[in-house]
Amino acid sequence: MKNVAILLSGRGSNFLALSDAIEAGQIPARIVLVVSNKPDAPGLIHARERNYEAVCIPSAGIEREAYDRQVVEELSARQVDVVCLAGFMRLLSSWFVQQYPRQILNIHPSLLPAFPGLHSQKQALEWGAKVSGCTVHFVDEKLDHGPIIVQRSVPVLDQDTEETLSARILEQEHQIYPEALKLVCEAKVRVEQRRVLIRK
Amino acid sequence: MKNVAILLSGRGSNFLALSDAIEAGQIPARIVLVVSNKPDAPGLIHARERNYEAVCIPSAGIEREAYDRQVVEELSARQVDVVCLAGFMRLLSSWFVQQYPRQILNIHPSLLPAFPGLHSQKQALEWGAKVSGCTVHFVDEKLDHGPIIVQRSVPVLDQDTEETLSARILEQEHQIYPEALKLVCEAKVRVEQRRVLIRK
Repeated sequence: MKNVAILLSGRGSNFLALSDAIEAGQIPARIVLVVSNKPDAPGLIHARERNYEAVCIPSAGIEREAYDRQVVEELSARQVDVVCLAGFMRLLSSWFVQQYPRQILNIHPSLLPAFPGLHSQKQALEWGAKVSGCTVHFVDEKLDHGPIIVQRSVPVLDQDTEETLSARILEQEHQIYPEALKLVCEAKVRVEQRRVLIRK
Repeated sequence: MKNVAILLSGRGSNFLALSDAIEAGQIPARIVLVVSNKPDAPGLIHARERNYEAVCIPSAGIEREAYDRQVVEELSARQVDVVCLAGFMRLLSSWFVQQYPRQILNIHPSLLPAFPGLHSQKQALEWGAKVSGCTVHFVDEKLDHGPIIVQRSVPVLDQDTEETLSARILEQEHQIYPEALKLVCEAKVRVEQRRVLIRK
């Protein structure tokens, strides 16, 4: 049974998808803490509705590593094993990443390495991609860069807007994030160079 | 009925896929010329076996645009409408591209903009991508960069080698290149910024 913490900044729809899968017994994990860096994140309200411990650690005006030390202190106090970023709009410091080697997961709404950074769906549309998708990856020191655990492709349609494409991708995000967390919590993955392989 | 020229440097398996679709009457086009820059390209032999006019215009030691002018002279003499690159291992000059605006197609074994350049399948494996694929795009002045007509995704498996992944992608290349050429020959596409949209 792994202790999982969720870090979010907004609605946290991927947090809810992870929570659903965990509460349904599909993942050997329990959510021991939900952290938001934004006091008004709807995700905090959802967390409390679901009876998770939920704290806001405001980030405005705080230096990156000083902030991360505050967060890690809260995680350590709950013996957190795995950290899931679910729309957490801050880059983690190297120091934070090193505290949880290969135990921090993030989800990104494109097939990385295509369209990293913000507004990936808009980037995909403007590039004229015909296929996009989403990626769950381990977090490393670089933005949207760590080893990839699961990816899922999604068609881009001629009539798509940023909203319709985002919605189609989000549906798949809600599928693959629980799948990836399950693999990690069951210790089924090993990383060779950048390749994440399923342990036999 | 569009006059199509094929440019290749090697075996030209995508040339054969295009030829199969054209000879089966699936594309309103005829292949009026096959050009290789390599005298020993197996694609030239295949072309002659299929009774296409096939010429070698050797490129070794010739300046880019000077070479391209030799090729375009041959294309012009056959009233070529559409040019398909099928493993043609040379970058076209801007001058060549401008002679056939939005009428030069290329196929690339990745989901562009991911993994441009050479050895895309090896790049995808080494990056640890879980999804890759192939792209048919219009050729512009930059390498592997023009507007995308069709893309198709392909899973990357844990046990994949460069060879097995390449074979899985190639199977889809042989599907989407004829699809894309059909759209172009039927004048069914329009380009808005970088987006290639199907005309209603």
